[in-house]
Amino acid sequence: MSPFAATPTPPYYAVIFTSLRTAGDHGYADMADKMVELAAQQPGFLGIESAREDGENGLGITVSYWADLVSIRAWKAQLDHRQAQAMGRERWYASYRVRVSLVEREYGLSHH
Amino acid sequence: MSPFAATPTPPYYAVIFTSLRTAGDHGYADMADKMVELAAQQPGFLGIESAREDGENGLGITVSYWADLVSIRAWKAQLDHRQAQAMGRERWYASYRVRVSLVEREYGLSHH
Repeated sequence: MSPFAATPTPPYYAVIFTSLRTAGDHGYADMADKMVELAAQQPGFLGIESAREDGENGLGITVSYWADLVSIRAWKAQLDHRQAQAMGRERWYASYRVRVSLVEREYGLSHH
Repeated sequence: MSPFAATPTPPYYAVIFTSLRTAGDHGYADMADKMVELAAQQPGFLGIESAREDGENGLGITVSYWADLVSIRAWKAQLDHRQAQAMGRERWYASYRVRVSLVEREYGLSHH
C-alpha cells in the first residue's frame, strides 16, 4: 500500500499533528492502529500520512486529510476518539501541536 | 532545541512535503541540512518540523511554515534551492507530494 494519501484536487483540509511521545508503549500502538481504522470510516476522511523519527524524543508527524471542517469537528467529537485523545493527553504524549489547515495547491513527482 | 516550530498565531502557511527516498545517500543528508539552514534565512520563514520513518521505503514528512504565499514562492525560486530541487527529482526522491496549505487554527499540549 502506498504511504501517500490519494487526496483529490484541492481545496480540502489537512490536520497536521506533531507530537513527542512519553517513554514506554502503555497501549499506544494498539490504540493508534484502531484510531487510523476508525478515522478511515468517518465521513469526509480523505487519507492519512504518518512518520516518526526513531529513538527517544523522536518527533512524530501525522497528517490526516478531510473534505471540510465539519468532518474534522465530527471526528474530534467521536466518542472512541475522545477517549483516545484523553489517554493521549494523560499518558502517551509529552507534548503535541495540532494545526488545522486548508490545502490550496498540490503537486508532486512519481518515478513509478 | 525543540523539534516543534514556534509558529505565531494563525493565519500563516504550511508546506507539507511527503516523500519516499531512493536507495543510498548520494549527498542527500548534507544538502538537506544546508537547505534547512538556507530556508531559515529566507524572509517569511516561521519554522520547520521533520520526521522520517526508519528503514527502506520509510515515509518522510517535512512541514515548513511561512508567513505568506509570496515567501513560499520566493523560496521555491531561490537559486541554490532550485538546484537542490532538481537533484531531488533526478536522484534523491522516488516520489513526493507537496501540499501548500493555509493554517487557520493551532492548539496543543505541553507537559514541560
